Amino acid sequence: MKHNFGAGPCILPQEVFKQAAQAVLDFNDGLSILEISHRTTEFEAVVAEAEKLVKELLNVPAGYSVLFLQGGASLQFAMVPMNLLGEGQTASYLDTGVWASKAIKEAKMLGNVNVIASSKESNYTYIPKEYAVPSDSAYLHFTSNNTIYGTEYFEFPETAVPLVCDMSSDIMSRVFDVSKFGLIYAGAQKNIGPAGLTIVIVKDELLGKTGNKIPSMLDYKQHIANGSMYNTPPVFSIYVALLNLRWLRSKGGVAEIEKENIAKAAALYAEIDRNPLFKGTCAVEDRSRMNITFVMENPELEKPFLKLAEEHGIVGIKGHRSVGGFRASMYNALSITSVHALIEVMQIFAEKNK
Amino acid sequence: MKHNFGAGPCILPQEVFKQAAQAVLDFNDGLSILEISHRTTEFEAVVAEAEKLVKELLNVPAGYSVLFLQGGASLQFAMVPMNLLGEGQTASYLDTGVWASKAIKEAKMLGNVNVIASSKESNYTYIPKEYAVPSDSAYLHFTSNNTIYGTEYFEFPETAVPLVCDMSSDIMSRVFDVSKFGLIYAGAQKNIGPAGLTIVIVKDELLGKTGNKIPSMLDYKQHIANGSMYNTPPVFSIYVALLNLRWLRSKGGVAEIEKENIAKAAALYAEIDRNPLFKGTCAVEDRSRMNITFVMENPELEKPFLKLAEEHGIVGIKGHRSVGGFRASMYNALSITSVHALIEVMQIFAEKNK
Repeated sequence: MKHNFGAGPCILPQEVFKQAAQAVLDFNDGLSILEISHRTTEFEAVVAEAEKLVKELLNVPAGYSVLFLQGGASLQFAMVPMNLLGEGQTASYLDTGVWASKAIKEAKMLGNVNVIASSKESNYTYIPKEYAVPSDSAYLHFTSNNTIYGTEYFEFPETAVPLVCDMSSDIMSRVFDVSKFGLIYAGAQKNIGPAGLTIVIVKDELLGKTGNKIPSMLDYKQHIANGSMYNTPPVFSIYVALLNLRWLRSKGGVAEIEKENIAKAAALYAEIDRNPLFKGTCAVEDRSRMNITFVMENPELEKPFLKLAEEHGIVGIKGHRSVGGFRASMYNALSITSVHALIEVMQIFAEKNK
Repeated sequence: MKHNFGAGPCILPQEVFKQAAQAVLDFNDGLSILEISHRTTEFEAVVAEAEKLVKELLNVPAGYSVLFLQGGASLQFAMVPMNLLGEGQTASYLDTGVWASKAIKEAKMLGNVNVIASSKESNYTYIPKEYAVPSDSAYLHFTSNNTIYGTEYFEFPETAVPLVCDMSSDIMSRVFDVSKFGLIYAGAQKNIGPAGLTIVIVKDELLGKTGNKIPSMLDYKQHIANGSMYNTPPVFSIYVALLNLRWLRSKGGVAEIEKENIAKAAALYAEIDRNPLFKGTCAVEDRSRMNITFVMENPELEKPFLKLAEEHGIVGIKGHRSVGGFRASMYNALSITSVHALIEVMQIFAEKNK
């Protein structure tokens, strides 16, 4: 058995893989999910149920639309300013890592951007808390969880301007209040489903106000008007997302999975703090529950530790080159058994290297 | 057994479904294709082989890049002018159907467009042949096969300006000379693979010349520089496309499949022309081999015919609402056995309704 700590595309529940494989062979009446039209009643029901489940699991209030799009969060970096940032307006951004700064770079190509806080000077080891949001900002953009650096917002920015958030790596991992947000987007390939799908949750009343000319595929209003079927959607990715959302509901929903995520993160951080060979890389109060970054006091031991971990079936813990060391990504589908397996290897290794 | 004549997403070979299902359960070393990182050696090999196979099967000359993108042909409708149509320039377009006119609509949002010929006045039943391409056009855009109306270009436009083609519904179905083109794009969900993937083949020297500011995800040069991995690609759709391209090579490649496609289309058109109940909708010389549109002399018989066809396992032949009647889509993976099954039902029905 493998313990998959990969950062993404990443682990999904085994039962989802089984159901997905079955649908590739026979989704409906002998036809594969890969060969049916997206205009069939059967697939329209898939999209409708997936939308309903996103709304139910996140308690999305009335007045918001849920969209299933393509292009990942990276395409949202451009779509957000195209749709929300008018000529002469300025958008505020918080810079907390590689993805946040890519969002800033793309927005700058399309309009005026004000970076109101950044933790870049410390290699993004913390979430900035002291900043003022100009009240005339078109919106405030931030990244709720920083996959590469291992930080996460546990208190969201408070502001009267529309809040826009890239939640790619922690959506569906914890309870939060959608009504505080103007727009949320997330690449599916962490806690929602496979790669090739992006979820957008947008407050309808914010749209159509900039006067920008927006190509149809980049216009949220077009996708809303067409129920995420403006053109052929990523059929299989949406179907697998539905299977995974059903699994999440069967586990008791987001509130229940959050308890597990808290327990998993607490267990691993406790070991990092206890074990003399390891140390965390981020400010304790901002430590992510999804992506746990840590290094060794003695970097020469990192290779042998990685080797031992691999021998124990642990995969995907090599750290991103921007941080080094290790990154244990612990998304919803990773069981606490896998976390304990990693902790055990850390303890065995510490014993060997006393 | 079903005979899947659906227009897309559509039939793929049964062995591709089997291999794809297996990879969902265990792609590599116990891990599902849905849970591996796109940065693994194993997946990088998938992308490299898929690219190599596209180049080999289409005989793509040096100086062209092959890209695996998202967003379908519809996103290309915007990306093409963003990347190729500079301020003050004009692009020429040929209007041969719904998709061609959508491409025109999107391009008009982004620059100057000149529609140099259209068959709209006849409900797109033929391919216009008389037109002049202004020699200062940034490019000439056309749609090689019109999925909805059932027409196909058998002679491509001759022009000195760069030729841009939406080949979504006939790429990989017939031999053609890539070197005549500046840019080719195709939604994968006909002859390449499942929905959620778009293939672009572009002549490198055409790029980077407009001075347009292009968001990274919409910039071909960014995707080329990153080997189609600027961000997380649609992993599963690329993998299934690879399986399908391997199947096509094992069949003898595009030249061999073209022979089958010619035979399949000839058989069905012969029946349409012979059978007194049916008639084709398009100019004979422009009849598509991929999407065969036909109606009944007596429209009241269409429902009972559809019912009889369904009883014989024939699915997906209801015509698009723009044309009515029937559309038999006969992509690469549809066997001649299925075509004969349809012909047989047409003959049985004619016998019953003499």
